[in-house]
Amino acid sequence: MKTGASSLVYTALNAGVEICFSNPGTTEMPIVMALDRVPGMRVALGLFEGVCTGAADGWARMTGRPAATLLHLGPGLSNGLANLHNARKARTPVVNWIGDHATRHLAFEAPLKSDIAALTGNVGWTRTVKSPHEMAEASLAAVEAALGPPGRVASLIIPADCQWEPGPEPLSSTPVPALREAPDTTVQDTARLLRKGRGGILLGDNALTVRGLNAAARVAAVTSCGVWIETFPSRQECGRNVPRFPALPYFPEQATEALANCASLVLAGARDPIAFFAYPDQPSRLAPDSAEVYTLADPDAGIDATLALEALAQELDAPEVVIPPRTVPVFTPSDRPLTPDTLCLTMSAFTPENAIVVNEALTTGLAWSALYAHNTAPHTMLSLTGGAIGQGLPNALGAALACPDRRVIAFQADGSGLYTLQALWSMARESADVTIVVCANRCYRILQNELARAGVAQPGPKAQDLTDLKRPEIDWVALAKGFGVPGCSVSTDGELANALMRSFSERGPNLIEAVLT
Amino acid sequence: MKTGASSLVYTALNAGVEICFSNPGTTEMPIVMALDRVPGMRVALGLFEGVCTGAADGWARMTGRPAATLLHLGPGLSNGLANLHNARKARTPVVNWIGDHATRHLAFEAPLKSDIAALTGNVGWTRTVKSPHEMAEASLAAVEAALGPPGRVASLIIPADCQWEPGPEPLSSTPVPALREAPDTTVQDTARLLRKGRGGILLGDNALTVRGLNAAARVAAVTSCGVWIETFPSRQECGRNVPRFPALPYFPEQATEALANCASLVLAGARDPIAFFAYPDQPSRLAPDSAEVYTLADPDAGIDATLALEALAQELDAPEVVIPPRTVPVFTPSDRPLTPDTLCLTMSAFTPENAIVVNEALTTGLAWSALYAHNTAPHTMLSLTGGAIGQGLPNALGAALACPDRRVIAFQADGSGLYTLQALWSMARESADVTIVVCANRCYRILQNELARAGVAQPGPKAQDLTDLKRPEIDWVALAKGFGVPGCSVSTDGELANALMRSFSERGPNLIEAVLT
Repeated sequence: MKTGASSLVYTALNAGVEICFSNPGTTEMPIVMALDRVPGMRVALGLFEGVCTGAADGWARMTGRPAATLLHLGPGLSNGLANLHNARKARTPVVNWIGDHATRHLAFEAPLKSDIAALTGNVGWTRTVKSPHEMAEASLAAVEAALGPPGRVASLIIPADCQWEPGPEPLSSTPVPALREAPDTTVQDTARLLRKGRGGILLGDNALTVRGLNAAARVAAVTSCGVWIETFPSRQECGRNVPRFPALPYFPEQATEALANCASLVLAGARDPIAFFAYPDQPSRLAPDSAEVYTLADPDAGIDATLALEALAQELDAPEVVIPPRTVPVFTPSDRPLTPDTLCLTMSAFTPENAIVVNEALTTGLAWSALYAHNTAPHTMLSLTGGAIGQGLPNALGAALACPDRRVIAFQADGSGLYTLQALWSMARESADVTIVVCANRCYRILQNELARAGVAQPGPKAQDLTDLKRPEIDWVALAKGFGVPGCSVSTDGELANALMRSFSERGPNLIEAVLT
Repeated sequence: MKTGASSLVYTALNAGVEICFSNPGTTEMPIVMALDRVPGMRVALGLFEGVCTGAADGWARMTGRPAATLLHLGPGLSNGLANLHNARKARTPVVNWIGDHATRHLAFEAPLKSDIAALTGNVGWTRTVKSPHEMAEASLAAVEAALGPPGRVASLIIPADCQWEPGPEPLSSTPVPALREAPDTTVQDTARLLRKGRGGILLGDNALTVRGLNAAARVAAVTSCGVWIETFPSRQECGRNVPRFPALPYFPEQATEALANCASLVLAGARDPIAFFAYPDQPSRLAPDSAEVYTLADPDAGIDATLALEALAQELDAPEVVIPPRTVPVFTPSDRPLTPDTLCLTMSAFTPENAIVVNEALTTGLAWSALYAHNTAPHTMLSLTGGAIGQGLPNALGAALACPDRRVIAFQADGSGLYTLQALWSMARESADVTIVVCANRCYRILQNELARAGVAQPGPKAQDLTDLKRPEIDWVALAKGFGVPGCSVSTDGELANALMRSFSERGPNLIEAVLT
């Protein structure tokens, strides 16, 4: 029988959705049965919904096309919301299929009843299906909404009866997002502004391609402007093949200092920069009040920042730039204990060309971006866009399934990795080529830093307890084993180098617990 | 300095909140500093917010008083929402302290900005603090709202500046929820209804005390009515010391059959029974359309169902009932393989008196309630009230900290246990006396049953993949070790008996993976 559920799945497949990261329950059984019958639609089970939503985000960051998630009612969606928040901030296209009780059942207070639309409204576009006849059209509308531009989280709430009743013929449209060029006048105004001197450019989102970064370097060469990259970009090309620009620092006192000299700040794929958090003695806006902030390319308006930067370079008659060869330090494995620096140095030496580095290493990850990524083989970096920790491992899963010919490195802080560690099991099941490097400092270092910044020199026992992961110590190798992922623990740069090389030579996931001194 | 945060914490302590299950971030640092300074307020760190909210639920089910949770902005709350959904359905008092950006920072699109009130509104009472001067009064209002009656999830959204600015003197009021007796006329009408014959009583919520169950038995003895217990009660006294009543069956065809003969159905602490899920050929309401459904005691109206049942027994002149001694089968440990039945039989034989059984064993747990709990030593059972799986381990943590003199058994399905397995670490850190019995059938059995009910005799490979946890096999003993909890794996009733006895003789948590054949 052609059910509403099969209209949904066939239409999504035709629209370019190839995979469904799933954690279904009873109200989604007709969709499970449809997935079972539709050839070409891959399914991957997550043991927790945050794995599914984070994997869909990682998949779409690498392919530009949405994956679907299959989630069970309000609580299932709730478990996936944190990573949908990150996807929203990354402007990633994601399509959520969320089952609800059959329409007639919603009149009653069943145990699993809740207001699902109030939750999905928080992360993006929402549509509640009212009849099985809508199932094809709604499926296509969700893919279109997800693709944008800008990319979006699009949620379909689908009562069980709309899934199990007979459905319409699937649609066979394949939407493509239409990014636009910046208007000529915007490019000309930007050129005029930067020619005045003391200019700055903040790059983000779709500016961070090889071509976009090269164009920014050309602009900087002729205008002497400063160039920064937003602190947590969704996707960025990195390494020895691209011009090196600093990331805008995380703490507001450092970021305002970096931008202090700017008379103007041009936004290319980035927003007017805002501090991650507010502090009593720091501003929220990071650009100087006196600076003219000008938008060259706003991804929310569907403008391609890479094309805009290229047009700007042309407008400025900027010659091509040559990236001088970087002096790659010779790495000699030794028995130096692992610190954030020796860890990053080792990773930088061994990261294979064309790797995808999913950076949720937080304190260690900031060091990586600032000091090591540029001296590493060409690679793509995905960052924690919305601050909702627990993105890294699911993102790495999704990126690995999207790009089976590329090695993924999940560069992972230990505290945040524990939020969605169930992703390890899906990596094992799907034989995803992911090397997980856990930066095991065994504390919430960033919170310890925040306590110190707030003037607490000696935290008492309760504050210590709330930022410390040592009592008891977490054994990541055992956790990995529990989920079927082989692992080892290392504490020197030589051990780490060996573990990385071994991991890169094998298929499937592998976890390295890098114990920091 | 007396900050708004310290006004909040001192006032809550005075109001009877003794513990804060915490997973803070930067926006909650002033509350962390206040917790550090306020003697008498215990803190317990959860590695994931669902652990904190589920633990607060378990704590309050056992004490009747709310615990606080400390959560980081919208994403932190999101991660805790599923267990707050369960708490809402259980009418458990819970107080959430959720940090938000400083008021002035909310004008900007910071990465972690989201609409927190839209999320909290979904699970209960919400108040957004507007000024540090409100911090004491808002803290007390949240405790009062949580206590009800009925018990509720109460969320305070607290901008960081309201925490760090100077705050008012703490308040020192200790609210007590005032449960009321049912009106005499209601009791009399109920008696008249049941005297007509072919009556039924559905017990739930605060009816399920030893006194309430005894009163129901007296009523049944004089009116020959049927008595059922709601399928998933928040807290229920169980064992050989209380009258045995069947739980209302989970599947609607069985539940409607059970109630088919009722001319009337009296609700004592329960709601008009509704099927857990809708099915194409089954009704949503479970009572016969012809039955008169009458509310004796509605907990949402603050009525004490135990007192109402006692008044009803008195109105009916029902004599005391004597519970005949149960024939406890002699248990002979052997090498029988573990099935749901041999597992329950073994657990029933060894569960110590006064234990707390947190039942999230799902398919195995339904067998336990129906066939084994009544023949077990007197104990208290907590159930999965809202269907949002991942309640069990956090609930067990909270119950163990609330009742340090009682053994807690986390009777846990393997699939659902994986949603919030991070609770194991908090059990180890807090030396919680929890015996975790993982019913390892290595699949989502309930979904396999649902596929069969939907007529899928032979699921295809994708449907199988979505209900199967065998590829790779999950090693619960390794997962427990990773979080610092000792564990063992058993596959016969004799091994299980030994493991249970050993676990009950030791302090702290202990995990037993019971591999089902």
